[in-house]
Amino acid sequence: MKRKMILDVDTGVDDALAIAYAVASEEIDLLGITVSYGMAPVHYTYRNTTEILRLLRRPVPVLRGSSQPLERAKEYGGEFHGTDGLGETLGEAANDPGVPDRAVDFIIEQSRKHKRDLTIVTTGPLTNLARAIREDPSIVGTIGQVVAMGGAVTCPGNATPFAEANVHIDPEAADAVFRSGLPITMVGLDVTRRTLLTEREVVEWERTGTEAGVLFARFARFYLYEYRKYYPYLEGCALHDPLAVGVAKNPAFVRSLPMFLRVDLEEPGLGRTTEDLHRRAPTGPNVQVCVQVEASLFRDDFIDQVGRILAERGD
Amino acid sequence: MKRKMILDVDTGVDDALAIAYAVASEEIDLLGITVSYGMAPVHYTYRNTTEILRLLRRPVPVLRGSSQPLERAKEYGGEFHGTDGLGETLGEAANDPGVPDRAVDFIIEQSRKHKRDLTIVTTGPLTNLARAIREDPSIVGTIGQVVAMGGAVTCPGNATPFAEANVHIDPEAADAVFRSGLPITMVGLDVTRRTLLTEREVVEWERTGTEAGVLFARFARFYLYEYRKYYPYLEGCALHDPLAVGVAKNPAFVRSLPMFLRVDLEEPGLGRTTEDLHRRAPTGPNVQVCVQVEASLFRDDFIDQVGRILAERGD
Repeated sequence: MKRKMILDVDTGVDDALAIAYAVASEEIDLLGITVSYGMAPVHYTYRNTTEILRLLRRPVPVLRGSSQPLERAKEYGGEFHGTDGLGETLGEAANDPGVPDRAVDFIIEQSRKHKRDLTIVTTGPLTNLARAIREDPSIVGTIGQVVAMGGAVTCPGNATPFAEANVHIDPEAADAVFRSGLPITMVGLDVTRRTLLTEREVVEWERTGTEAGVLFARFARFYLYEYRKYYPYLEGCALHDPLAVGVAKNPAFVRSLPMFLRVDLEEPGLGRTTEDLHRRAPTGPNVQVCVQVEASLFRDDFIDQVGRILAERGD
Repeated sequence: MKRKMILDVDTGVDDALAIAYAVASEEIDLLGITVSYGMAPVHYTYRNTTEILRLLRRPVPVLRGSSQPLERAKEYGGEFHGTDGLGETLGEAANDPGVPDRAVDFIIEQSRKHKRDLTIVTTGPLTNLARAIREDPSIVGTIGQVVAMGGAVTCPGNATPFAEANVHIDPEAADAVFRSGLPITMVGLDVTRRTLLTEREVVEWERTGTEAGVLFARFARFYLYEYRKYYPYLEGCALHDPLAVGVAKNPAFVRSLPMFLRVDLEEPGLGRTTEDLHRRAPTGPNVQVCVQVEASLFRDDFIDQVGRILAERGD
């Protein structure tokens, strides 16, 4: 049986890679993609998502969602993903006020409908999911699993020395989701930084000559160059978001530890994810934190699936 | 065959518990105890160590060592361990300038002599060990194993929200030791905070009526009360240092992950221990970081051994 999945994204170069990986994977029945602000404003990330699906010729429902964090202001820098979110490949996006914010309702509806059969994979800030469980707390007990790309438990962050970007953007949302009781697997920098995309794959995508292949190569190369600038010692760019899809497909890609996780809500550690040993109640662990990854096993599957879908030719 | 061990301490309430546990354990051949400043100035921690051994009637050589961190100034607060290091039980210590700083030489001599058979367990700042490998780098390749109580990888610190006390006191020493190539097992707050001593054991020690039992009960109770003040939700005080001895005795007390560890040398994260994913050279892991503990298995052994030695009566 296929795994019913909602992908919650803020597309984003590696979100685009995660989308391609998910729609290419036979094992996944992608019910819909919910979108929030994140790497770029939400009308950009929404546009990016629909455009990626159009090029991949996979008519998956796309639901626009949150335009800002629960409590904080958000500014956009354009590092790593470009000001359009996709490496300056798609240009300005029109902000159509007619597109409703339907992401939260969609998450609630699908949770009620599919219950334990539903997997939610998040690759952006946890704002949409936090709003959904605030609006209908009963879904906490029914959703099968959440696989969240975010956080950094054993290693430094990427937004700050302490915090990973998805958690740092909306720490209140992340803290609410972690503490909610949802069955969460955290796919953080601890493991995603060990899974790298290299120039070699990007060249392959370019060579397909398809519209999708050429676009993916362009924005992946932008991302590679940014990585080279900031992390010259890495031999590629991290497959953060695709690994979350990978873990949902095949838990054997990683090893995890059960922890009771909390999020720092104050500077200087704002957005830091640590075990909460100071919790008042001695409750059990709430999150499976991935700490080791079978990087080549995952990479082989990712490259295989994404290479195949990017090479597909239209009619 | 007994395990040849040097214990490097800064006695300290839980160091005293670690010493009692080590000398009580049949499996351990304690070659000597090296002492540094830490919980109190070095003439206090040296006096505390010799006094503990006198009361336990175990004539183990005690070597006085470092009186300050490699590069930083050290101030003493007296929290948790009292101004004398042992819960205000032993009073002022005379600073005899005639006691030489022999700890570093002792570590080097014993490393050359026993090589792979030598285990060094550290329960204080890593200053003595850092000085030893600086003075004779060749011992790095010969020492069998180092088990170091210190650090906090997956959880907040206790000296600051980011740093554990032993690493925070002398972060340069800790960083030098971690990067040295020594075979290190890190026993940090990740595991030690889950191993608790309770009022019940302390009452048992008191009831022995021995000089050692009564003293141990007094300073353990001081420590328990400090814990109750700072961490009212914990049901006891952490057996930080004894767990390091425990791991040296029986690696099955813990589960560890291989990591390439580094120490933050700047504020605000000063003394934080994290995986160094930014390292230039893609070298292998340098430290086994303990992340899970069989708390009751270890506690049973600790309580059994320490209870027995404290109940011993002199001639």
